[in-house]
Amino acid sequence: MAKVADKYLSVDPWKIIEDGFHPDRSEVSESLFSLANEYQGARGFFDEGYSGQSLVGVYLNGIYEERFGEEMSYKGISNRLAFMVNTVNWPCTRVKVDGEALDLAKSNFSGFRRALDFRTGELRREFIWETSSGKKLQLVFLRLLSMETKELACQQIRITPLNFSGKVSLTAGLDFSVPHRMFNQNFWECVRKGDGAILGVSHNIGHCLFAGMQVSAEAPQVPVEAEKFIGVRLDVDVVEGQESVVGKSVTLHAERNPAQAWEKGMLQLQTSTKRYEKVLNCNRAYWENFWANSDITIDGDAETQQGIRFCIFQMQQTYRGAINGANIGAKGLTGEAYNGNAFWDTETYCLPFYLFSNPNAARALIDYRYKTLPQALARAKDLDCEGACYPIATIDGTESCTLWQHASLQFQPTTAVAYAIWHYFNVTRDKIFLQSEGIELLIKICRFLASRGQWSAKGKFGYYAVMGPDEFQMMVNNNAYTNYMAKRTFEFALQVLDGMDISHLGCSRDELNQWRCMASAMFIPYDSETKLYEQHEGFFNLPHIDVDSIPVEDFPLYHHWSYDRIYRNDMIKQPDVLMFMFLYNQSFSLEEKSANYDYYEPRCIHESSLSPSVHSILASELGRHQEAFDFFHFATRIDLDNYNRNTHEGIHTTSIAAAWMNIVYGFGGMRSDGELLSFQPSIPVHWSGYSFQVTYRRSVIRVEVLQGRAIFRIINGEAVPVKIYGQIMEVNREGVSTAI
Amino acid sequence: MAKVADKYLSVDPWKIIEDGFHPDRSEVSESLFSLANEYQGARGFFDEGYSGQSLVGVYLNGIYEERFGEEMSYKGISNRLAFMVNTVNWPCTRVKVDGEALDLAKSNFSGFRRALDFRTGELRREFIWETSSGKKLQLVFLRLLSMETKELACQQIRITPLNFSGKVSLTAGLDFSVPHRMFNQNFWECVRKGDGAILGVSHNIGHCLFAGMQVSAEAPQVPVEAEKFIGVRLDVDVVEGQESVVGKSVTLHAERNPAQAWEKGMLQLQTSTKRYEKVLNCNRAYWENFWANSDITIDGDAETQQGIRFCIFQMQQTYRGAINGANIGAKGLTGEAYNGNAFWDTETYCLPFYLFSNPNAARALIDYRYKTLPQALARAKDLDCEGACYPIATIDGTESCTLWQHASLQFQPTTAVAYAIWHYFNVTRDKIFLQSEGIELLIKICRFLASRGQWSAKGKFGYYAVMGPDEFQMMVNNNAYTNYMAKRTFEFALQVLDGMDISHLGCSRDELNQWRCMASAMFIPYDSETKLYEQHEGFFNLPHIDVDSIPVEDFPLYHHWSYDRIYRNDMIKQPDVLMFMFLYNQSFSLEEKSANYDYYEPRCIHESSLSPSVHSILASELGRHQEAFDFFHFATRIDLDNYNRNTHEGIHTTSIAAAWMNIVYGFGGMRSDGELLSFQPSIPVHWSGYSFQVTYRRSVIRVEVLQGRAIFRIINGEAVPVKIYGQIMEVNREGVSTAI
Repeated sequence: MAKVADKYLSVDPWKIIEDGFHPDRSEVSESLFSLANEYQGARGFFDEGYSGQSLVGVYLNGIYEERFGEEMSYKGISNRLAFMVNTVNWPCTRVKVDGEALDLAKSNFSGFRRALDFRTGELRREFIWETSSGKKLQLVFLRLLSMETKELACQQIRITPLNFSGKVSLTAGLDFSVPHRMFNQNFWECVRKGDGAILGVSHNIGHCLFAGMQVSAEAPQVPVEAEKFIGVRLDVDVVEGQESVVGKSVTLHAERNPAQAWEKGMLQLQTSTKRYEKVLNCNRAYWENFWANSDITIDGDAETQQGIRFCIFQMQQTYRGAINGANIGAKGLTGEAYNGNAFWDTETYCLPFYLFSNPNAARALIDYRYKTLPQALARAKDLDCEGACYPIATIDGTESCTLWQHASLQFQPTTAVAYAIWHYFNVTRDKIFLQSEGIELLIKICRFLASRGQWSAKGKFGYYAVMGPDEFQMMVNNNAYTNYMAKRTFEFALQVLDGMDISHLGCSRDELNQWRCMASAMFIPYDSETKLYEQHEGFFNLPHIDVDSIPVEDFPLYHHWSYDRIYRNDMIKQPDVLMFMFLYNQSFSLEEKSANYDYYEPRCIHESSLSPSVHSILASELGRHQEAFDFFHFATRIDLDNYNRNTHEGIHTTSIAAAWMNIVYGFGGMRSDGELLSFQPSIPVHWSGYSFQVTYRRSVIRVEVLQGRAIFRIINGEAVPVKIYGQIMEVNREGVSTAI
Repeated sequence: MAKVADKYLSVDPWKIIEDGFHPDRSEVSESLFSLANEYQGARGFFDEGYSGQSLVGVYLNGIYEERFGEEMSYKGISNRLAFMVNTVNWPCTRVKVDGEALDLAKSNFSGFRRALDFRTGELRREFIWETSSGKKLQLVFLRLLSMETKELACQQIRITPLNFSGKVSLTAGLDFSVPHRMFNQNFWECVRKGDGAILGVSHNIGHCLFAGMQVSAEAPQVPVEAEKFIGVRLDVDVVEGQESVVGKSVTLHAERNPAQAWEKGMLQLQTSTKRYEKVLNCNRAYWENFWANSDITIDGDAETQQGIRFCIFQMQQTYRGAINGANIGAKGLTGEAYNGNAFWDTETYCLPFYLFSNPNAARALIDYRYKTLPQALARAKDLDCEGACYPIATIDGTESCTLWQHASLQFQPTTAVAYAIWHYFNVTRDKIFLQSEGIELLIKICRFLASRGQWSAKGKFGYYAVMGPDEFQMMVNNNAYTNYMAKRTFEFALQVLDGMDISHLGCSRDELNQWRCMASAMFIPYDSETKLYEQHEGFFNLPHIDVDSIPVEDFPLYHHWSYDRIYRNDMIKQPDVLMFMFLYNQSFSLEEKSANYDYYEPRCIHESSLSPSVHSILASELGRHQEAFDFFHFATRIDLDNYNRNTHEGIHTTSIAAAWMNIVYGFGGMRSDGELLSFQPSIPVHWSGYSFQVTYRRSVIRVEVLQGRAIFRIINGEAVPVKIYGQIMEVNREGVSTAI
C-alpha cells in the first residue's frame, strides 16, 4: 500500500485545472481531461495535433473490433479478444501561421491552462503561441459532448492575434486514420465521403460509423480529402486584438447497415443544433440537475472534495443508462487498457452508485446482461454446463478473456448478475422486473450453478477448480466466496419462485428441489471456534508469507514474480471472504466480521485498485476509523494524483465508483442489504463535515454529517423510513438529527 | 482401455512385412518402416515420390528449429518452441519410362511387398510397375543407415524390365525443399552446392547440414540443380530380364560452422565406403551382436514376439549412446509429433532398457542432462528458484513446453534426473561418475527442490501449486509423487555427500542440514489405517466419477471435454502414487501396494500410453496375472496395430520402452531398486515360454521362463549374485533353475 501521489493539478471544488503544460504527463492529462456522454468519449488530446506523447483516442460505447489468438487445442478456451476500437479523431484541426504549424511539442508558448468543469462538461484549453517570427496569438480550444443529443460533439477555437493582423490557416477535419495503439493498426475503411461527412466501416465486425461536421467560420471553406480523412481548409483573416471564432459541430452515428448509418447520420447532422453556446447551456442545466441529487460535499478537505466530484462526474459521463445496451468498461471511454471490456465490477462496484442516483440506469445495467443472455447460454455450453455463464470480460456479451484460468474458472460475473438483481430489487422493490426478466435470469444462472457444482465424497455441494475474487489463488476447491454467492443465488431464486406459477418458466419442481438441496448442502468452509471462513479448502494450511516483507520494488507482483510463485502462499490480492461479508453485510455478526478482517486484511496486498475501499468500509463498521481513513486516503484521487502510475492508459472507472461507495457505505455507514436502508455515519477527524444524497424509493435523502451529529432530510419526494444506528426513523423534509 | 487393433502387417519373428500396398495406411507404414541409427532417421516414405498421403521426413538427432509464441506478460512462462526440423530428402529419386513418372498413387502396379529386417536394419520394397503402354518393370528399392558410420546412408534401386528393353530415366538427388509439416514452411536455405553436395543452413538456429552423394550406375550422370536441390539425371539402358542397379551413398554431416560442415562432410563423403553390400554386412554383424545380448523371445505368441522385437529394434535405432548429446524424442526420429522433444520418459521409461543392455548408453543419457545443466540453472532462475530445474519438453536443454501449467508446475523431469542417477548407480556402482558429475547434478537439483518447496503453517515441508505425473490434477498442493521423489532425492544426495569432502562442491553443512530437515519434515499424505497415500492434499475429498460411465466417444477427453472439466474429480490420467511405488518398489509393503492399486487403478483412464505398463508390472507383483496380461496385451504392438490411431505421426518410442519393462519387470518380476538385482518371474498362461537377457555388472544374465520353471544363466562374463524369489543365488554359466 505504499502509494505516492504525483500531484500537478490545481485544487478546485468544481474543476480540474492544469496550470502550465506538463509534457511528461501528457497522456495522464489526456485521460483525466476526457469527455464522454456514455455514447461517445474523447480523451483530452490536443485538437491541433501534438508530436509528443499522445494517445488520440475517440471511442464509442459498444463499438469494438475483434482479434483471434493462436488456436487453442482445448475445448472451452476462448481465444477471441473483443476490444473497444479507436474511431474517428473529430476534434482534428491543424493550425498554421506563415506555413508554421502549431505543435506544443515544438512551438513556443506560454500561459498554458487547461480546465474541465464538472458543472458543464466543457473542456477549455488556452495558451499564447509565439511563432518563430515573433507573432503572438491567444488561442482557446473549447470542447463539449452534448448530454442531450448523444451523437453531438462541439468544438470552438478562438483566435486572438496579439501583435499582428494577417492570416491564420486552419484545416478542420474528421480523421479515421488513427491507429489503434495496442495493435498498431487502423481498423477502419472509409467507404463513403461527401457533404462534410465520412463513413467508416470497421474491418472485422463491420460497425458503420458516420461522422459528419459543420464548420462555422468567417472564411471560405475549401474541401480537402485523403483516404480516411475529410476536412475543410480555412484561411481566416485575423485582426490584432480581435477574437475570431471557428466552430465545428460533429455528429457521430453508428449502425450496422452502411446505408442507414449514412442516412440517419446525415439527418442528425442537418437537424441538430449547431450553436456551441446553446449546447453548453443545455449541458449546464443537465449537470445542475444531476448535482442537485447526487453531489457529495466535503468540508475541510479540498483535495478530497475535488477528488470525489471528479469521480462522480466521470461515472456519470461514462454511463447513465441513456443508451440501449451500454455497459461500463474498466477505463470507461478514456483509454484502451483492458480493451474497453466490462467486468463484474459493473454489478459489484458501479451498480450501487446508479441504484442510489438513477435506478433506471441501474436497471439498464441489468438489462445489458439480459440482452446478452444468449451469449451467456452459449458460453455455459462451451464449458460443458447448462444455463448461463457470464463472461469475465466482455463488450458484446461473449467471453473476451483469453486467459483460460480466469475465463473458465471465475464465476464472479455470473453470481454478480444474480446479486445485482437481488440488490436492485431489495432497494427498488421492482417486482415487475423481478418476476419477468429477473427470474428468467435467475433460473438460467441457477441452472449453470447447479451443473457446474459437484457433490463431494462427503455429501457436500461445492465448486471445484475455481478462482475466487482473490486471483492469487488460481485453481482451488470450495472457494468460500463462490460457494456462498451460489448458495445465496439459489436461495433468492427459490424465494422468488415460491408462490409463482412456474409452469411457463420451463423449470420443474424437481429442479427447484435439487437447487434447494444444493443450497442447503453447500460447503462453506467455516471454523465456528475462530469464526473464520476459510477462503478455500486448504487455505489455512498454505505456507505463510509476511506481505510486509516483500520489497516494494517487487510490485506489481505479476511483473516481477514468476507466474506460479504468486499462487503458493496465503497472500491475497483483493478481498474474497471480506467481499461477501461486504455484499451481504448484515448476514454476518460484528464478531465474525472482526475476526475475518483481522485474519485476511494483513494477508492482502491490494494489488487490485478495488480492494482498499472494501477494507475501508468494513474498517469503518468495526470502528477502526484511522484504518478506514488510511484505506480511503487516495480513493478519490487515484487518478488525479496518478497513484498507480498508469492513468495514462485511462482512468480507473470502476475504482472511482468504489470511491463513492467508500464515502456512502464507509463513512456514511449506509447498508442496502436489509429490509430498510440503514445508516451508521462516522466522520474522519479532520473533516468538519460532509454530505451526500441518495435516491431511495423515489425520494432523495440528503445526509449531512458533522463532527458529533448527522442530519437526514428528504430534499425531493415523500418521507421514507430508514434505520439510523439500528433504529427505524421516518425521514422527512424537516429532517431528523442524531448524535454520532 | 477399449483399444482396437488395426492389423495389416504379416507376422514374422524378425521382420515387419506389408504384403500388398495399403494406401489408407500409407503414413502409418512410413512411421513403422522408419530407419534410424541415432544420428539420423528416415521415415519409410517412397524414394520415387508419392502424390498420396505421405510425410517425407528425414531427421537428425538434435537438429532443430525454433518458433516463438505470442509474447506472454508473465514472468517464467516459456513461449519458445524448439522442434526437430525436417531436413533433406536424401532417398529422393524420380523414375520415368517414356516420360511417364512412377507414382504409386497413380501408376499400375502389382506384387507390392515392403519388409524391414530387424537383423540388418534394411528396408526393402519391391513391386512390378506396368506403364500405360504396357511395359513391365520389376523394381526393388533398398535402403540402409549404417550403424558403424553414423553419417552414412545407402540406397539401391534394382530395375529389371520384364517385357522390354529400352531406357529408364532416373533423377537421383538431395532435396532440401521439403516443408516442415506442422508449420507448412521450409526452414532451410542452401548456401553452397557442388561436387555432388549441397549445404543447407537452417533459418533461425543456423544449423549447417552437409549432404553429399555418390551415385553409381552404368549410365552417364548429367547434373541437375534447383534452389534447394542437387541431383543427377541418368538414362539407364535396360535389357529385358536383366537387372540394372543404381546405387546412391549419402553422407549427412551437421555442424554449426558452414565452412567446417562442408569440409568435414566432403572428407566423409570421399572416404566412407560406398559399397552397399559392405554396409549391409557391417549392419548385420552389428545387429547380430546386439540381439545376442538383448533379445527377448516369446514362445507361443507370434504376434507378441514380433511386437517386442520391433520395440527393441526401434529403441536401439533411436538411441544407443553412440553420439554426443543425444536424447530420445517422444517419437524418436520417426515423426514430428511432440516436435521431437524429449520428456521425463527418458529417465523413467527408457533408461532401464539401456541400463540392462548398454550401461554406457544409459550413462550418456544422464550426461545429456549434465551437458544441459546451464539451461536448467537458467530455467530455475526464470522460476525465481535456485539450482537446476529440468524442462518438461526439450531438444537443446531449454524449456520447449509453452503451456505454463505444465512447464512451471511439473517437476517430474527434475526429480527424474536424480532418480536416474540413483538408479544408474544402484545398478552399476559407478562411483566415479556419482562423485563427480552425479553429485554436482544432485546438489543443483536439491538446491532447486529446497528453494521451490515451502513450509506449511503446520511445520511440514512440501510443494505447492504443482502438477504431478497425473496431469488431470492441474495445480495442487503436496502432490504425493512430487513430495516423495523430492524426499528421496534429498536423502540420496545427503547419503552420497556423507563422508565426501564437500569443500570443493560449493555447498555448506548448513545447506545440507536444511535439506535434511526438509527431507525429514516432508509431507507425504498417508492414511496409516487404509494404507493409502493421498495423491495430493484434498484428493480424497474430490467429487467421484465412475470412469466406466464415461462414454467411449468422449475419449480422448482433451478433445471432447471442456478443459477445466477434466480437472475437477478423482479421475486420474496415469499413475501418480502407483508411479513412485513402481520406481521405489521395494520401499513399500505388498499390503500398501495392494491397497493403493485397488484404490487408484479404478480411477485411472490410462490416457497416457505409458500408463498400462506400470499397472501391468504392479498387477504381476500382486499376483493378479490376468489383469497384468490385460494391461500388457497391446503393449508390444501399440504401433504395429496402431491402437491409438496416431502412429502416422510417428511411433510411440517411449511406450515401446515401457513394453520392454512390462516383460522384464512385469512378467520377469525383475527389481533393480534393491542392493541386488532380483527376480520373481511369472508367465502368462498361454505362453509356452519366454526369455530375456540383462546386462548386470558386466555380465549378461539370460532368464528363461517356462510354464512351471525359470532358468537363470550367465551367457557372458562372470557369475553374479541375484535374488530369486527373495533368495540370494549365485548365477553362473551352468545356470540355476527354480520352480515358479
